[in-house]
Amino acid sequence: MTNALPVTLDDVHDAAARLKGVAHRTPVLRSRTLDALVGAEVFVKCENFQRVGAFKFRGAYNAVSRLTPGQLARGIAAYSSGNHAQAVALAARELGSTAVIVMPEDAPRSKMEATAGYGAEIVTYDRYTGDRVAIGEALAAERGLTLIPPYEHPHIIAGQGTAALELIEDVEDLDALVVAVGGGGLIAGSATAAKGLLPRIRVIGVEPEAGDDTRRSLAAGERVSVPIPRTIADGLAAEIPGELTFSVNRRLVDEIVLAGEDDIRAAMRFAFERMKIVIEPSGATSLAALLSARVPDLPRRVGLIISGGNIDTRRFTELCGP
Amino acid sequence: MTNALPVTLDDVHDAAARLKGVAHRTPVLRSRTLDALVGAEVFVKCENFQRVGAFKFRGAYNAVSRLTPGQLARGIAAYSSGNHAQAVALAARELGSTAVIVMPEDAPRSKMEATAGYGAEIVTYDRYTGDRVAIGEALAAERGLTLIPPYEHPHIIAGQGTAALELIEDVEDLDALVVAVGGGGLIAGSATAAKGLLPRIRVIGVEPEAGDDTRRSLAAGERVSVPIPRTIADGLAAEIPGELTFSVNRRLVDEIVLAGEDDIRAAMRFAFERMKIVIEPSGATSLAALLSARVPDLPRRVGLIISGGNIDTRRFTELCGP
Repeated sequence: MTNALPVTLDDVHDAAARLKGVAHRTPVLRSRTLDALVGAEVFVKCENFQRVGAFKFRGAYNAVSRLTPGQLARGIAAYSSGNHAQAVALAARELGSTAVIVMPEDAPRSKMEATAGYGAEIVTYDRYTGDRVAIGEALAAERGLTLIPPYEHPHIIAGQGTAALELIEDVEDLDALVVAVGGGGLIAGSATAAKGLLPRIRVIGVEPEAGDDTRRSLAAGERVSVPIPRTIADGLAAEIPGELTFSVNRRLVDEIVLAGEDDIRAAMRFAFERMKIVIEPSGATSLAALLSARVPDLPRRVGLIISGGNIDTRRFTELCGP
Repeated sequence: MTNALPVTLDDVHDAAARLKGVAHRTPVLRSRTLDALVGAEVFVKCENFQRVGAFKFRGAYNAVSRLTPGQLARGIAAYSSGNHAQAVALAARELGSTAVIVMPEDAPRSKMEATAGYGAEIVTYDRYTGDRVAIGEALAAERGLTLIPPYEHPHIIAGQGTAALELIEDVEDLDALVVAVGGGGLIAGSATAAKGLLPRIRVIGVEPEAGDDTRRSLAAGERVSVPIPRTIADGLAAEIPGELTFSVNRRLVDEIVLAGEDDIRAAMRFAFERMKIVIEPSGATSLAALLSARVPDLPRRVGLIISGGNIDTRRFTELCGP
């Protein structure tokens, strides 16, 4: 007996309608050099050009836009290593609410500044000792705020899925979709859209080697945790898949491949020098898997989601050069 | 009595037909941060995403595609500080010809490597003592090559104009167009397209402070030269406007504004951190003029051409960071 999935293609279409005119319909770039290197036609969906610089705005706005006037008046809370923070802060501001964001104290400075720039209050914690979920929940309870989780919510997942929906609308006959996996919200939503529209498409997740919790969990058939990942891909440093996202991904994701830290740096440099786009480490992880040939039997027409571009020139230089 | 212009809107349309399916139709990006900073709606035409990383491919391909089979068989010569070199090299390869490129010995290494990568032979000279036109012409005469000039040719000007043509087709009701000026080919072609389609559009050229030969020439009513410009915007380091390009620009360009070296660096950083795009110094000069408020009475809807993105991470760091 098959249980119904918690998010459907209709939910993704519904999110797309709410995001119309609010989120950017981001461009799909091509690179002949990339195609030649990986031996496929690669269609690069550039969510680094999305508002707040990452796909996260899609889910956050979709979720916040469904709150009641009373909830919006009391305010919103969120915990995030960065891009979800900015996304919730901006969604709150756009919808006339306020936001308190719990962020790790070692989050990239540019992300903290941008979050504060959207008018949010920031509360920091130690990523290696603190429990952001507990801190966020306590804060929400104390102040009467509505917590917007980074991935464990159907409206978040459906919102993120609009990135893949647009890509599939803009590019015919994709054979595969390659998407990075952190908590699993982007790939869960993307797989929902992709398999709903193209049942035979291959959905390939990419994790950093140090944070392969979803790969291990799919192999085990249940959610398993890994030590707190120390990876430059800070947005993908999940210890364990989300319960909700894993319930989708175990059914819709075909395989997970890994990308090493040096592969991620090389992908950032490639994107800079050959594609002229800026990608943060988490956003470069999917590209890294393609460039380092980690995907076996790559088919002909491949959709690739670049998930974010929030990195300052200082951090970029630390990681990639000169 | 009005003399006919050497390039017409029809010529630009004709170039566009030749470039269809060969050149990229580059995306037009928006940035709310940019709009807020400059107080206008700015539509950013990203020629840094063009093939060879710059608008130069448009003109080069248009020109090379009109050569006879005999000319193509004998081969092509060009002189260029960089992007025209790559453009001619690639156009030659695509059209079954060969190319010899005269480049300054201090041209950015990434541009020299890319030019060689397209299969061209490179001949270097000293930019401060040598005469690239004389070297190119001697080489062409000696080997029977056809010289493709970087801007002094109607097919080059018409080809470059397709960038503005696409921008005007994609964005309704532009009030102004802001374009960098080196030899003047991009702005001559762009002004031809823009004024042909929208007679009341304001065409604003931008030069680096150190290389304001076109501004001085427009003020003087005739071509005047400046000392060899020492500017980070190597692609705009022209000493004197082209004769052909100036004959167009004196009639179609409304004004020239200047951008300082620090403004150009700041624009490159802004593009990196806020727009997530990589722009080389010459390509950032038009953006620099907007961000440093050099354009008086900026109207509401402004088209901006970002002309190129060919810079490696090392040079970017030297100029912009950390």
